[in-house]
Amino acid sequence: MNIVLKIGGHLLFGERVEQSLLKEYVGVLRELYRGEKWVVVVGGGVPARKYVEAARGLGLDESVCDTLAIHVTRVNALLFSHLLGDKAYPAIPQSLEQLREFAERGRIVVMGGLQPGQSTMAVAALAAEAIGAERLIVATDVDGIYTDDPKRNPRAKLLKEITIPELLRKLSQYSHSAGEYKLADILGLKILSRSQIPAIYLNGKNPENIRKAVQGQLIGTLLKP
Amino acid sequence: MNIVLKIGGHLLFGERVEQSLLKEYVGVLRELYRGEKWVVVVGGGVPARKYVEAARGLGLDESVCDTLAIHVTRVNALLFSHLLGDKAYPAIPQSLEQLREFAERGRIVVMGGLQPGQSTMAVAALAAEAIGAERLIVATDVDGIYTDDPKRNPRAKLLKEITIPELLRKLSQYSHSAGEYKLADILGLKILSRSQIPAIYLNGKNPENIRKAVQGQLIGTLLKP
Amino acid sequence: MNIVLKIGGHLLFGERVEQSLLKEYVGVLRELYRGEKWVVVVGGGVPARKYVEAARGLGLDESVCDTLAIHVTRVNALLFSHLLGDKAYPAIPQSLEQLREFAERGRIVVMGGLQPGQSTMAVAALAAEAIGAERLIVATDVDGIYTDDPKRNPRAKLLKEITIPELLRKLSQYSHSAGEYKLADILGLKILSRSQIPAIYLNGKNPENIRKAVQGQLIGTLLKP
Amino acid sequence: MNIVLKIGGHLLFGERVEQSLLKEYVGVLRELYRGEKWVVVVGGGVPARKYVEAARGLGLDESVCDTLAIHVTRVNALLFSHLLGDKAYPAIPQSLEQLREFAERGRIVVMGGLQPGQSTMAVAALAAEAIGAERLIVATDVDGIYTDDPKRNPRAKLLKEITIPELLRKLSQYSHSAGEYKLADILGLKILSRSQIPAIYLNGKNPENIRKAVQGQLIGTLLKP
Amino acid sequence: MNIVLKIGGHLLFGERVEQSLLKEYVGVLRELYRGEKWVVVVGGGVPARKYVEAARGLGLDESVCDTLAIHVTRVNALLFSHLLGDKAYPAIPQSLEQLREFAERGRIVVMGGLQPGQSTMAVAALAAEAIGAERLIVATDVDGIYTDDPKRNPRAKLLKEITIPELLRKLSQYSHSAGEYKLADILGLKILSRSQIPAIYLNGKNPENIRKAVQGQLIGTLLKP
Amino acid sequence: MNIVLKIGGHLLFGERVEQSLLKEYVGVLRELYRGEKWVVVVGGGVPARKYVEAARGLGLDESVCDTLAIHVTRVNALLFSHLLGDKAYPAIPQSLEQLREFAERGRIVVMGGLQPGQSTMAVAALAAEAIGAERLIVATDVDGIYTDDPKRNPRAKLLKEITIPELLRKLSQYSHSAGEYKLADILGLKILSRSQIPAIYLNGKNPENIRKAVQGQLIGTLLKP
Repeated sequence: MNIVLKIGGHLLFGERVEQSLLKEYVGVLRELYRGEKWVVVVGGGVPARKYVEAARGLGLDESVCDTLAIHVTRVNALLFSHLLGDKAYPAIPQSLEQLREFAERGRIVVMGGLQPGQSTMAVAALAAEAIGAERLIVATDVDGIYTDDPKRNPRAKLLKEITIPELLRKLSQYSHSAGEYKLADILGLKILSRSQIPAIYLNGKNPENIRKAVQGQLIGTLLKP
Repeated sequence: MNIVLKIGGHLLFGERVEQSLLKEYVGVLRELYRGEKWVVVVGGGVPARKYVEAARGLGLDESVCDTLAIHVTRVNALLFSHLLGDKAYPAIPQSLEQLREFAERGRIVVMGGLQPGQSTMAVAALAAEAIGAERLIVATDVDGIYTDDPKRNPRAKLLKEITIPELLRKLSQYSHSAGEYKLADILGLKILSRSQIPAIYLNGKNPENIRKAVQGQLIGTLLKP
Repeated sequence: MNIVLKIGGHLLFGERVEQSLLKEYVGVLRELYRGEKWVVVVGGGVPARKYVEAARGLGLDESVCDTLAIHVTRVNALLFSHLLGDKAYPAIPQSLEQLREFAERGRIVVMGGLQPGQSTMAVAALAAEAIGAERLIVATDVDGIYTDDPKRNPRAKLLKEITIPELLRKLSQYSHSAGEYKLADILGLKILSRSQIPAIYLNGKNPENIRKAVQGQLIGTLLKP
Repeated sequence: MNIVLKIGGHLLFGERVEQSLLKEYVGVLRELYRGEKWVVVVGGGVPARKYVEAARGLGLDESVCDTLAIHVTRVNALLFSHLLGDKAYPAIPQSLEQLREFAERGRIVVMGGLQPGQSTMAVAALAAEAIGAERLIVATDVDGIYTDDPKRNPRAKLLKEITIPELLRKLSQYSHSAGEYKLADILGLKILSRSQIPAIYLNGKNPENIRKAVQGQLIGTLLKP
Repeated sequence: MNIVLKIGGHLLFGERVEQSLLKEYVGVLRELYRGEKWVVVVGGGVPARKYVEAARGLGLDESVCDTLAIHVTRVNALLFSHLLGDKAYPAIPQSLEQLREFAERGRIVVMGGLQPGQSTMAVAALAAEAIGAERLIVATDVDGIYTDDPKRNPRAKLLKEITIPELLRKLSQYSHSAGEYKLADILGLKILSRSQIPAIYLNGKNPENIRKAVQGQLIGTLLKP
Repeated sequence: MNIVLKIGGHLLFGERVEQSLLKEYVGVLRELYRGEKWVVVVGGGVPARKYVEAARGLGLDESVCDTLAIHVTRVNALLFSHLLGDKAYPAIPQSLEQLREFAERGRIVVMGGLQPGQSTMAVAALAAEAIGAERLIVATDVDGIYTDDPKRNPRAKLLKEITIPELLRKLSQYSHSAGEYKLADILGLKILSRSQIPAIYLNGKNPENIRKAVQGQLIGTLLKP
């Protein structure tokens, strides 16, 4: 099965690189990979945030800030890719056309961002579409999608599943409190929708969840296109 | 003044290439250009639509359809660029990083699309952000933005100006009738918004409108960030 | 057996994309391909001709006209390549060195033009030489090579075979009525000659002819080096 | 005036690099250059011939032989370009599209070959077309074009001028004794013809001839398109 | 005067980006730059060190560690370059050949590392050689070169000048306590030596020192080739 | 076993290309290769030396001289690579990142130099590190490493083995008579040292020595990291 796995940058790249979690991820992926088209999209985490904050503090524009963050995601991707060793394609794609080329080689392709104005979630959706993925797995720092923001509302309940239109409606209600990339997340959702790709949102702090999602077990929240 | 001009593909590239309109555009741009950073973003028009329809008819996925369309926009851009002669940078950028490089050379940069999942409107907004444009001019086949869809509702009235939040609200009402790239247009608007770039929507069938917009006269609809 | 197949652009890309013929071609190629080095060279057809006519009408030079046509052949190649799915290499070579790299991967490589001043026939011959093809198959809109121009002389007879020197002599007699690329066709023939590659000219309106030519049956005209 | 200067490889690159002649060429060009579009196309000379002979002796095909020779022409071009110092664009174009980009920078562009199956004469003609040259200067080891091969027939007379059709007729008579690139020379001539670019063939052993040709004095043979 | 300025990564990129020092550097450079060939080589600092430590901790080899560090230096270079605004070339060279191209454009070129096995000091020396710099300025966190390691020996005295052979002898004495890149620093020194480029080592915590060195005042230690 | 084989340019590329020795090398490599990661690094030989001497004679700087030599090594590598046929990767890497990509394809990668300031010995060491080679084989024109320079001192004795620190000490004694790349050789040795890669120095005039070294037999001198 062709799969895209999006890993939130903050899970693996905090003030320090999370070496033991990285190792577990790599272990799970190496164990499960059988030569299909797999793409891992890695976010920028704390190192990216530091460059963006400095750039903004120094008066640089949003396009430059995004560009710096993208380059950091690629450093993260490079590190992740080398850890996968001979299971990974030994270069980081910098466009969807390159991704298509690399994905044909029977290796996991690891990538970061592509272009200003896009979250790595949007990148993951575009990657899923480009390789014809049957599933997008989104590893975050919560258990999935909730009825409300779980970090503010303790009574928020984890959803077993939700459709993209329902989620879009939910996001438009949150919009005034939107994080900087809500715009791009909407792009990501629309891509999943037009290409009918389901996504699984799960807690990435426990890499065993990745194993379950890859193997098709129920875990986290299923986002239905 | 740094400017991005987005020209709807159907204006210039219909069943045939609109040679005389192209000539007028080129004449106006060559006359007005004084070495600032100018970017022209050209859409795909009928040739792109034909490839996309065929690809879809043949069962290819949306990512491929977009890719084909992007390549056609670049052919259009190449033709436009050669018509500008020594006023144009002699290559078509294929990423925003390339755009930044080319835009520094005292030539008009002509470009088409960049990536699946984006309209050329989104590309134009990203380009405007990347070169620090003070203004985005959007040449369409109607006089600007209306109170309602002017092609359906004869009583729709042209707006002198509108803010991006107001326009976003309007678009969300239209959403069930949305053309295939409404998603990306939202991306374009959010980019304009975060970088505070005003846009002027005008009727591109009359290239004199371009002249007016470049020279700062009131024309069409002003979209305020 | 290593093979180059050159498909006249007008066969597949007329006013509309010839979807059903394309499908048949793809079906035949997917069925017969066994991992050898195969290259498909696709011409520009009507879309290319339209850009070239417009460019010429607008006063652009021959080098630009050719460049526009080349870019259209690559769009055609991209569409063809995606239809071949996992049997095709997922990128279009833009030089013979790239072709050599791509051709080693056990996939069919689809390509368009390379450089101004060359017909896709010349490209096909250069490609045949570069991959060490045993045979070049040329799919046109007539049954092969005739004793005279079959579209003018109803008594022209189809030749079973002809040598390159004989054909060159024939072409030099036609020369005053030469199409725009006769020059390059001569280049193509000289390449076939110096590398001793036979070519089969056949009627590409019937894709079964391709099957026969690939399988080594007699069909159309054999051009002996 | 935009000019292409083609220098036969054997003039400058024999068993040893002809340092003093190189210096004179560079001196003349640096002195005369005023920022127009100038392209110098350098052949491969003896070093190229040695690689080609070895490759052929080792059984490699013509496409590889040409590729090796092209790479040597680029080494020659690199050396020539560095000698021109700040008058030269500091990179060697590897395609006509790159040439168009580099030629806009107010520097002399130095290049070698582009593709198998082409002489540097054909490259020079394509370059002339691509930059819109008013004149192609061809520096050889004889004084121009003769009524017959001057190295065999002592009574051969130098022609003041000749038209391309006349020259083509002449070449077809020589054809059995044709050097290995006669095929490509025909391509070069056809390119000059379709783009109406005159060429001046002159003796390149005396770099003062270059000066005269650049300054518009009569010298060598004028080839009229 | 052509100049290369090498800035130790730790000066500008510590646990946080040193925004105010960066601003001062940029201010000084923008003020002094007059269109000559200037190259700024930026090190990796703390962010690079963190990636390298993690990579080493995870068992990756030295070549990968260096590659990660190089990518971080390029992120640093990108940020620095955008701060220089229109005084900087808007792309980061990834090879010396690219550097030569970029350096011709009348902008400051900012770059990071190039290749595993090299310190940014070696890169700076290679860059100085490639652009024909008259001087290499090395901004470190001490006042220059001392008679002994100033961080260990409080009686170490700052040298006004020293020759490269003398410095090499000194380094060979230190060798058992060598930092990880001593090997590459020797490469840097040998490059400076063969191309006879003097270097000025100074304290980069005070950007006014840069101003003095650029303007030719005595400051820090002069390393004579 | 992953292996890097460095072949001194003068062995294969003298005044003429050494066709028969080349053939023997290719024969041995084709026979022994089983799909592991193998890299062949080829030097520049006489052709490179001629360009360098001319460039130096014409007053060009060391950086340009090295660049010319690197391009010649790549021509040599291209010829070698084509001789290996389908056992070789059909492109020459121009950076260590490209090398990593090419080395994964189950083909021998042939390369020349990478960057000014490096001998091909340093390149070979960097390549060995980048692909994780277990062994570097260095084919020279003497039997291995001697107690003294065997070309000057007839009583110099061949060493069976030597450690890198011992060799470094030896080289520092030679330093006043150092060839032009002694600096880079030190870089090469330090790379071997930090990555603990043993090297075998042997006489490359007899390709059977290569066979022995690949098969693990004792031959020449073992350099222990």
